[in-house]
Amino acid sequence: MRLIGKEEIENIAIGAALLGTGGGGDPYIGKLMALQAIEEYGPIKLLNINEVPDDALIVPSAMMGAPTVMVEKVPNGEEAVEAFNSIKEYLGKEVFATMPIEAGGVNSLLPLALAARLGLPVIDADGMGRAFPELQMVTFFLNGVSATPMVLSDEKGNNLLLNTINSVWAERIARTATIEMGGSVMLAIYPMDGKTIKASSISNILTLEEEIGRSIREAKRHNEDPIQEVLKLTKGHILFQGKVTDINRKTQEGFAKGTASIEGTHEFKENECFLHFQNEHLLAETKDKVLCMTPDLITVLDSDTGMPITTEGLKYGARCVIIGMPCDPMWRTPKGLEVTGPRYFGYDIDFTPIETLCGKESE
Amino acid sequence: MRLIGKEEIENIAIGAALLGTGGGGDPYIGKLMALQAIEEYGPIKLLNINEVPDDALIVPSAMMGAPTVMVEKVPNGEEAVEAFNSIKEYLGKEVFATMPIEAGGVNSLLPLALAARLGLPVIDADGMGRAFPELQMVTFFLNGVSATPMVLSDEKGNNLLLNTINSVWAERIARTATIEMGGSVMLAIYPMDGKTIKASSISNILTLEEEIGRSIREAKRHNEDPIQEVLKLTKGHILFQGKVTDINRKTQEGFAKGTASIEGTHEFKENECFLHFQNEHLLAETKDKVLCMTPDLITVLDSDTGMPITTEGLKYGARCVIIGMPCDPMWRTPKGLEVTGPRYFGYDIDFTPIETLCGKESE
Repeated sequence: MRLIGKEEIENIAIGAALLGTGGGGDPYIGKLMALQAIEEYGPIKLLNINEVPDDALIVPSAMMGAPTVMVEKVPNGEEAVEAFNSIKEYLGKEVFATMPIEAGGVNSLLPLALAARLGLPVIDADGMGRAFPELQMVTFFLNGVSATPMVLSDEKGNNLLLNTINSVWAERIARTATIEMGGSVMLAIYPMDGKTIKASSISNILTLEEEIGRSIREAKRHNEDPIQEVLKLTKGHILFQGKVTDINRKTQEGFAKGTASIEGTHEFKENECFLHFQNEHLLAETKDKVLCMTPDLITVLDSDTGMPITTEGLKYGARCVIIGMPCDPMWRTPKGLEVTGPRYFGYDIDFTPIETLCGKESE
Repeated sequence: MRLIGKEEIENIAIGAALLGTGGGGDPYIGKLMALQAIEEYGPIKLLNINEVPDDALIVPSAMMGAPTVMVEKVPNGEEAVEAFNSIKEYLGKEVFATMPIEAGGVNSLLPLALAARLGLPVIDADGMGRAFPELQMVTFFLNGVSATPMVLSDEKGNNLLLNTINSVWAERIARTATIEMGGSVMLAIYPMDGKTIKASSISNILTLEEEIGRSIREAKRHNEDPIQEVLKLTKGHILFQGKVTDINRKTQEGFAKGTASIEGTHEFKENECFLHFQNEHLLAETKDKVLCMTPDLITVLDSDTGMPITTEGLKYGARCVIIGMPCDPMWRTPKGLEVTGPRYFGYDIDFTPIETLCGKESE
């Protein structure tokens, strides 16, 4: 157990946005909410998964919806408490801790804000090790854990308890309700016991986010190259470097979908990179070569500061470095690829790991 | 208290379809389900509202969705039981009885089938005295009763518990979830105590349905005119008589919407009537005159048999009599007209009662 204070939140926000691969929500909003909750309620207990009793009830917390909506419709914190209390009442059992289900600017930070408000610990684990756009895209799902019972709460005070036959139905019904409820809601989801968490989650993710964030901030402070530090921590590779020339973006079926074009600079001069995203960056390619694809991680960093840029933050003229990072091995299994591989998102290619695409398999 | 057996079900099915004003679902499916439940579990106790203790918990039961969908996706009866049991568990109190929320081939009969299965009584009352397409279009709503807590259950086993800030939000979220869940679901909705039922429901509606059905069947048996009997029981008027020449129908946003054209016969020769429906018939007019409008009731009867025809049952060439009937006085109040009057459905006219339109106000 260790305590998470304001300094740790600053670091986690950056690392989470980086692992959020362009999605997972605006890191600024998530950070503000967590900082304010710590200001008001004090630091948060972070537990290693080994510290969780096998029979303890854990209820992860998350925001659902297009992050572009959330920028205009900031949650007030009450939605998450309301969702959490509803599921607690329904299950009729005390909740031991909460945790994030994904890495991302909002969804890594909101569970911390909730934990501070409720005086609960947070577990140093999530269900993606990155961000993904759908509820069943979690390692819990690969391990047969149900997304329901699950509660959706909106800022108006509407509240839905779902019990579905599987997590794909949970995703379908929750998504359509979220759109009707205004585009974003807070969830209490995937309630699990400690034993299940240990078997099916990606551990030490908040610590990794914190290390990434700290290394970027330290490098800036010492005028060092922040990107090299990030590549070391994430086993990542530089995919492309250039300047954003075109962004095609629309909010469709509750998702922020689009493509960004990046004109090459440095060793990528005379070349162009296309980034395809659906909340998260899912495929990076040039005219003749795929550079990296889901479920491996693709992130855009600011060339100067090394800070991650979300898909909504991508602006014409921005100078950036695109990096690719290997995903958790659970995502590279046949079942993992079935729910998060390129074909699931409509790209007609087979998954090839970033190590192979970069010709650096031996590393 | 009296018992409802198979003979009563046959009559109620016809009367309910007639008051269902073209909507409320296929009377054949509702009847079959109720008959089968009686066959299996015995007759159903029907209670007058005065027999309900003030503090008894009543949970109405209903089908939500476009009735055109339901014809292809017949409920198996388990959905209603599942919805009912979920709300009972949530409220933590025994349920005294169920009741319909509207008159219609399905929604009058399914609560009877459910009551037979669960061994519960049914209250002789509903919340519309006719059929309407949306959940907040009930006299309970006019009296400030909340639609939630409410449970939606589908035939696959998915289950949603809603708690919304008002019944309009309940309608919005439930409608969108219903479409996602396949187009029709069973609801446990508007839980109320006996005192509230007495103050806000339309009483003796199942008895009226039974009398209408019996009079149509008796008239047929004795070669009498069934339509005159119906007009007496409902204080109705003949609006038009003719032959269906055109039907324009589509399923949109979960509703069966459209217009039917009827070429006049008898005293209506050389004239044409247009029937506009959204699940239910909402407006009947000729080229130069409005004949009847929502919330007053418009029903199409088969010219020969006097049997009601649903909007889905309207077929080219069908010879029919269109009748108009006054609605319950609660619907003619300003609040009633706000939620069920012609303007709510997009018709740019003020409500005029059928008695005025027919020039028979003194009757």
